[in-house]
Amino acid sequence: MTILIRSLLFVATAGLLALTVAKPTRVVFFGDSITQAGVNPGGYIDRLKKMLPAEQFELVGAGIGGNKIYDLFLRMDDDVLAKQPDVVIVWVGVNDVWHKASFGTGTDPDKFVKFYEAVIRKLQAANAKVMLCTPATIGEKTDFSNQQDGDLNQYSQLIRDLAKRQNIPLIDLRKAFLDYNLKNNPENKEKGILTTDRVHLNEAGNQLVAEQMQKALLGMGK
Amino acid sequence: MTILIRSLLFVATAGLLALTVAKPTRVVFFGDSITQAGVNPGGYIDRLKKMLPAEQFELVGAGIGGNKIYDLFLRMDDDVLAKQPDVVIVWVGVNDVWHKASFGTGTDPDKFVKFYEAVIRKLQAANAKVMLCTPATIGEKTDFSNQQDGDLNQYSQLIRDLAKRQNIPLIDLRKAFLDYNLKNNPENKEKGILTTDRVHLNEAGNQLVAEQMQKALLGMGK
Amino acid sequence: MTILIRSLLFVATAGLLALTVAKPTRVVFFGDSITQAGVNPGGYIDRLKKMLPAEQFELVGAGIGGNKIYDLFLRMDDDVLAKQPDVVIVWVGVNDVWHKASFGTGTDPDKFVKFYEAVIRKLQAANAKVMLCTPATIGEKTDFSNQQDGDLNQYSQLIRDLAKRQNIPLIDLRKAFLDYNLKNNPENKEKGILTTDRVHLNEAGNQLVAEQMQKALLGMGK
Amino acid sequence: MTILIRSLLFVATAGLLALTVAKPTRVVFFGDSITQAGVNPGGYIDRLKKMLPAEQFELVGAGIGGNKIYDLFLRMDDDVLAKQPDVVIVWVGVNDVWHKASFGTGTDPDKFVKFYEAVIRKLQAANAKVMLCTPATIGEKTDFSNQQDGDLNQYSQLIRDLAKRQNIPLIDLRKAFLDYNLKNNPENKEKGILTTDRVHLNEAGNQLVAEQMQKALLGMGK
Repeated sequence: MTILIRSLLFVATAGLLALTVAKPTRVVFFGDSITQAGVNPGGYIDRLKKMLPAEQFELVGAGIGGNKIYDLFLRMDDDVLAKQPDVVIVWVGVNDVWHKASFGTGTDPDKFVKFYEAVIRKLQAANAKVMLCTPATIGEKTDFSNQQDGDLNQYSQLIRDLAKRQNIPLIDLRKAFLDYNLKNNPENKEKGILTTDRVHLNEAGNQLVAEQMQKALLGMGK
Repeated sequence: MTILIRSLLFVATAGLLALTVAKPTRVVFFGDSITQAGVNPGGYIDRLKKMLPAEQFELVGAGIGGNKIYDLFLRMDDDVLAKQPDVVIVWVGVNDVWHKASFGTGTDPDKFVKFYEAVIRKLQAANAKVMLCTPATIGEKTDFSNQQDGDLNQYSQLIRDLAKRQNIPLIDLRKAFLDYNLKNNPENKEKGILTTDRVHLNEAGNQLVAEQMQKALLGMGK
Repeated sequence: MTILIRSLLFVATAGLLALTVAKPTRVVFFGDSITQAGVNPGGYIDRLKKMLPAEQFELVGAGIGGNKIYDLFLRMDDDVLAKQPDVVIVWVGVNDVWHKASFGTGTDPDKFVKFYEAVIRKLQAANAKVMLCTPATIGEKTDFSNQQDGDLNQYSQLIRDLAKRQNIPLIDLRKAFLDYNLKNNPENKEKGILTTDRVHLNEAGNQLVAEQMQKALLGMGK
Repeated sequence: MTILIRSLLFVATAGLLALTVAKPTRVVFFGDSITQAGVNPGGYIDRLKKMLPAEQFELVGAGIGGNKIYDLFLRMDDDVLAKQPDVVIVWVGVNDVWHKASFGTGTDPDKFVKFYEAVIRKLQAANAKVMLCTPATIGEKTDFSNQQDGDLNQYSQLIRDLAKRQNIPLIDLRKAFLDYNLKNNPENKEKGILTTDRVHLNEAGNQLVAEQMQKALLGMGK
């Protein structure tokens, strides 16, 4: 092979690589206040940026405080589909449960599933790969004596069933949080282990979520 | 023109006219348990059938108990659009308010409007003429001391504003019910005037609703 | 003393003794709709009558549907103290939790304890021996996914702590129901094992409660 | 008796009389967060101190944030009766209504009356003169479209009926606030006229309450 040809091949290969490198997988994190805070320094999305190869993943936060599943449905065109995501990680449920007690406007379990299915359908129709998360916690006590534990367990199971039924990857944050607390919360405290206020993540909480999502994102397609 | 031809023309024209006459306006009543009961003998839809010319109007009930605005949204393809309606009368709101107290799953006012707008948008896109109703009553006391009066007044105003903003005909049942009770409920009873149980219609209630809707349907397009 | 007089004295003494023996321990069952139904044929109080020696125990039902701890407080003079009970079994809590979701009028946990303490104080001041029960169940699923499980676990623990703090006998029905369901509810049903409707007792439920209370009543003072 | 002795007796008697005159009427303001803030500079109790003759009235605040009628009942021994009040102005109700929606722990209307009667009974048994107030406002819109208007109207009427039934002076703050807003809130704002946040008093609100209470206190016994 002449030097010229070698040089041409090199340029072509580098170009292809550059092309490949230039188009990372765009991941949109679609959720509530926990995800809204996830883009802040030290937040779980911010941590993920350092935990994933930058040339392979572009991470975009799309969280809004107070959102329930049907809020996601109502705003998904503008806030998610318009961004042409390759992957969308949906993490919602805390407000669907919590707002029952605090505003009287929680989400019925059967409607929760219907809107969740509608969100998935629209994401998949736009060729986005979907990942589901279970709602982590409203109170970190491990003996199921947090007020919303019954509903959180029920709605988490609805999400697990949905993921299984549709063969969608699941990031079971509720299980991960409970397992972590069973090891690290011997005094059965309601906050301070993974959350600052029973719901929103402290450093350890952001790190745990980042690790769970890192694992899921790197495991994609394998 | 020979008589034969004239006769043939006459028959053809009459046939066309008959065809036109034979296609009545299809009206779908889209709502909750009150509308579900409306098709029963003596119900408001049943009454309307006798109060409107049968050759001009075909009346179809599409009410399901417990429905809130987002339930209408979720089932409108199958239950309304599939019926190719000319007119859709949307009557909803009682459960959006009531379920706050009875299940913790009422509808936030801003989401109520968003889903109502989405329902209207889809109906209009299918070339259906839309009419809106205000939720009538949860308790017939006239001094605004029924528990849900505050919300019913608020959500009714949201519907009035929506109708005005989009130039859509409004059937203001809440106002009609209050006016009727101010005249006919001197003892400030909570039920028994237009309802059997504070919410669902007795004979007088069904008659009042039928009259309000008759007026709106006959006034259409004028 | 003549034989006649001796005989008369003997008869009188025996009569007094008989009279003493004839005075059984009066037990008042103080609670909500579950206890109200407990006096019906097959109810847990009805069963207890056959499971305890009639000459030793007089059983009196004092349950009223919908009662919360502060309802017990408000009506205890008329319904319990006026009956001069020797023992009062307090069984309450389901409505304190349930009415949060169904009426918006549940009981705050700290007020629950304060009123419970006030009830105990008044009963003890009237020389009644008190026994406490934990609320059994609102839904029989065993994976803590019944909506009210979080609160039921919390309020049950408040009652256990109260019993321990004041050295009062505890009948831990919530634990007994869960243990029974873990053995007998492999399909994780929400009703039909010990309840007819997630809350009120079927035959097996009434029998289980009767056995738990029998054990507590026979073990009294040992 | 010599003139000297007579004179001394006169002086002593006058002194006793002066002492009697010097004992002002002790008024305890018994309520929730609105009353808790009432003792702050510019608060309604602080204003009243300048609006009433100091030698005739001693004003004592006894408000605690979040209190419902049964909280008043639970703490009245320590916080009110221990202060040996001549007059107690009870102002409660906002949280009994509001906590239905925000915590699920509001007060049923019939229990509201029962505990209110119990509070009055204990105050009167301690020879305190009682005055009742209606809950003023949760939202200042004048068209009864504030979410809690239905309940506030109902509970206010329960208090009016109670005052009438027991011949107790009533300070009808709900009526006073509505009248004021009808004149001064032409834009139907939900806050900013008499409140800072729909519930708690701004300067105008504190002044209006102070005036209403001044009138009631000066009119006492007439």
